[in-house]
Amino acid sequence: MAAPSDFINYIDANADKFIHRLADAVAIPSVSSEAARRPEVVRMAHWLNDQLKALGVETRLVDLGTHVMDGEELPLPPAVLGKIGDDKAKKTVLIYGHFDVQPANKSDGWDTDPFTLTVHPTNGQLIGRGSTDDKGPILGWLNVLQYHAEHKKPLPVNIKFCFEGMEESGSEGLDELVEREAKPGGWFDGVDCVCISDNYWLNTRTPALTYGLRGIAYFKATIAGPARDLHSGVYGRMIHEPMTDLVLLMSKLVDPQGNILVPGVEDMVPAPDDAERAIYHKLDYSIQDIEETAGAPITVSSDKVEVLMNRMRHPSLSLHGIEGAFYGPGGKTVIPAKVSGKFSIRLVPPQTPEAVEKLVEKYLKDEFAKLGSKNKFTLDPVHGGKPWLADFNHWNFDAAKKATKHIYQQDPDLTREGGSIPVTLTFAESLGVNVLLLPMGRGDDGAHSTNEKLDRSNFIQGSKLLGAYLYELGAVGK
Amino acid sequence: MAAPSDFINYIDANADKFIHRLADAVAIPSVSSEAARRPEVVRMAHWLNDQLKALGVETRLVDLGTHVMDGEELPLPPAVLGKIGDDKAKKTVLIYGHFDVQPANKSDGWDTDPFTLTVHPTNGQLIGRGSTDDKGPILGWLNVLQYHAEHKKPLPVNIKFCFEGMEESGSEGLDELVEREAKPGGWFDGVDCVCISDNYWLNTRTPALTYGLRGIAYFKATIAGPARDLHSGVYGRMIHEPMTDLVLLMSKLVDPQGNILVPGVEDMVPAPDDAERAIYHKLDYSIQDIEETAGAPITVSSDKVEVLMNRMRHPSLSLHGIEGAFYGPGGKTVIPAKVSGKFSIRLVPPQTPEAVEKLVEKYLKDEFAKLGSKNKFTLDPVHGGKPWLADFNHWNFDAAKKATKHIYQQDPDLTREGGSIPVTLTFAESLGVNVLLLPMGRGDDGAHSTNEKLDRSNFIQGSKLLGAYLYELGAVGK
Repeated sequence: MAAPSDFINYIDANADKFIHRLADAVAIPSVSSEAARRPEVVRMAHWLNDQLKALGVETRLVDLGTHVMDGEELPLPPAVLGKIGDDKAKKTVLIYGHFDVQPANKSDGWDTDPFTLTVHPTNGQLIGRGSTDDKGPILGWLNVLQYHAEHKKPLPVNIKFCFEGMEESGSEGLDELVEREAKPGGWFDGVDCVCISDNYWLNTRTPALTYGLRGIAYFKATIAGPARDLHSGVYGRMIHEPMTDLVLLMSKLVDPQGNILVPGVEDMVPAPDDAERAIYHKLDYSIQDIEETAGAPITVSSDKVEVLMNRMRHPSLSLHGIEGAFYGPGGKTVIPAKVSGKFSIRLVPPQTPEAVEKLVEKYLKDEFAKLGSKNKFTLDPVHGGKPWLADFNHWNFDAAKKATKHIYQQDPDLTREGGSIPVTLTFAESLGVNVLLLPMGRGDDGAHSTNEKLDRSNFIQGSKLLGAYLYELGAVGK
Repeated sequence: MAAPSDFINYIDANADKFIHRLADAVAIPSVSSEAARRPEVVRMAHWLNDQLKALGVETRLVDLGTHVMDGEELPLPPAVLGKIGDDKAKKTVLIYGHFDVQPANKSDGWDTDPFTLTVHPTNGQLIGRGSTDDKGPILGWLNVLQYHAEHKKPLPVNIKFCFEGMEESGSEGLDELVEREAKPGGWFDGVDCVCISDNYWLNTRTPALTYGLRGIAYFKATIAGPARDLHSGVYGRMIHEPMTDLVLLMSKLVDPQGNILVPGVEDMVPAPDDAERAIYHKLDYSIQDIEETAGAPITVSSDKVEVLMNRMRHPSLSLHGIEGAFYGPGGKTVIPAKVSGKFSIRLVPPQTPEAVEKLVEKYLKDEFAKLGSKNKFTLDPVHGGKPWLADFNHWNFDAAKKATKHIYQQDPDLTREGGSIPVTLTFAESLGVNVLLLPMGRGDDGAHSTNEKLDRSNFIQGSKLLGAYLYELGAVGK
């Protein structure tokens, strides 16, 4: 069933009020990765909890204990669980979002104060930290709830909420919570499907549904040589220099065209057939789109399908940097004693961190042995996460497709993301149900960057889309 | 003529007073590379100027103007020029030293406060920033002057002094000063030879005289790609990643055995003949010495002659680090937009920075072209300095050999240094006279490291050595 026009009109009529509420949320600097701002994340949890209760949602603040960050033991912000509706005849959808944000300082290069939501005078963009990641989408759900609360209308589905405050800092404590509450009698017992609104359209034009995420295997390759940093004048060419060994090893991981040189890693992934290539061909995306957002004409191919497959269905290997070497401006003549190369491989099914780690370790050990260096080599996996793929022919996706068509009068792009949202897989595996990613914002929102924004139309039309999705879900029937 | 025993005894009798004066000098944190501490360098210049005047030296503080450091215009600390003696029948020696020091913070890993000279309770080491580099040697000269001032004894030679406060920051302004004062009528007019005490013995046992220094050509190779840092999940494998290109280029510069891979660079240097190899064979140095000071068994060869030639008479190429990439702990999934690899080549005659820069630029441009990357490559020379070699059969060296034999009862090692002291070449070329490097400290002093030290015996015997050298110079006659 399509969302009632009364609901659609209500969202339009109350748009300014909704933007005002988003400003209240953005004003709380809930940066989870800064110890000094941890109390603000807790404040944000209570703010959200109060909003949900006021809209008729039964809630629970769940203490997730403590963790150690930068050597300091800190309390984790509570997770906010919610439930509304208990009609056995209706489907039950679990909605996830996060109320913590990335760090932001005006001095990073923001044009406006990052924690003051600023409406752009001409294009209407809502600029502020968390506007699109992920306070905007969370507040989209509140907007939907508000219509039903004010009009005392029952929702078309039962809803469970799971909101966390540590997403930008590794979702500490969340996996355990989800696994616990997924069990019979738990908060999430009886959930039929999951919807997460925490990613973005491919471009700035076409709504998207997302059915896949790449996993990741992050590595730290360390070469240790002398007991301390040495002077290159005194020791240059007398000893095996750790940087020489490390740079040589790192150069053997990936070529300039992006091909992964670790034997076996590419081979794990089956080649695409014509049907799969057709999916990518259909996407509303161009080489020009990439060049515009990257800011330079540096795509590895001029074929859009190749480039999109490289992002969505192929693994990728990026060299991030070197810890322990000279990194400042100017010219320091140091031989660094111990250097660690950081690199990561984005994974696609059927790759797993464990399988890829084994290949990387064997390869780098063999390559290091060939160097004839007396330094010491070690490889540490830093973190890992499996890739995720959902069935986009499921009724959960069908509901979202219909809702998109209703609100935007166009079919959504069906996308896979190059990045990772680890909790997606936790929900899929713990609950054993279909998970849908339903993005609200655009590809140029700059989620982790300066001047993060959410377009006004994406917030308002997006709120309608979330409601419309619930109505289409309700229409599927139990 | 050997130094009088009265002088030798005086130095022993006043050792504790001299150490006290060294403590006063170390207590002034004259770090030239930190803007906030620039006034301390100026204070140190005045302290030294006052010491010299009190010992009968005619001095001049020379304003060297200003320079720009980290975007800030700063006054350069004045150079301290001095002269004592004007006897036409005596030789005139120019003595150089520097009163600025490297940065040091307790938190870098010092066991004691770096600016409080600490006498080690058992081995008597004098621990503090500048103890060996280069305040100890400067104060050694003051100790010699003090004997002659207190006893109203004329010095065996005329002395000109040139002390600067920017050696650790590129000796800004010094070349111009030396060139100006070397002209007829200038402060250095009439100088017969130069002595610089600003390097170290090869080991901890054998005094050394140094007749060669390597030059340097320091490079910054930059790869620029996207307009800003990108997320590796979103852009991984879609674009040419600057780190991939840079690491590949850097891997083609030097092999793990230290061989320089830039065509032409090694070929510029003639191979050693047996006579030259014999010099290195004779040096009191072992693979074990290197392993002990480096803290690990990582020499590129087990042949001492090969390893020493690698340090002293072969060029070397060291990779120092990467600017612009991720360098912190943990795992950040960034594709850095613009990265600059820092590396330097230590040069030996007949190499020059200009000749080597040309070879490096052509090679890296060619190698970059082979990568098939759409990123942009640029190479910038950061700084350069020519190598230096002196005639160690000169009377200036003979005087130092005799003085060493007198004070230490052993022949000095005749060494070339792997590092650079650019002003050495300026003196040699501007004055056209022989330059001798006469080190006071040991090979394990840790000049630029934490816990920098000067052994008590090196300070006291070293002061005698400087005096004895002047007497042997005096004996050469005009």
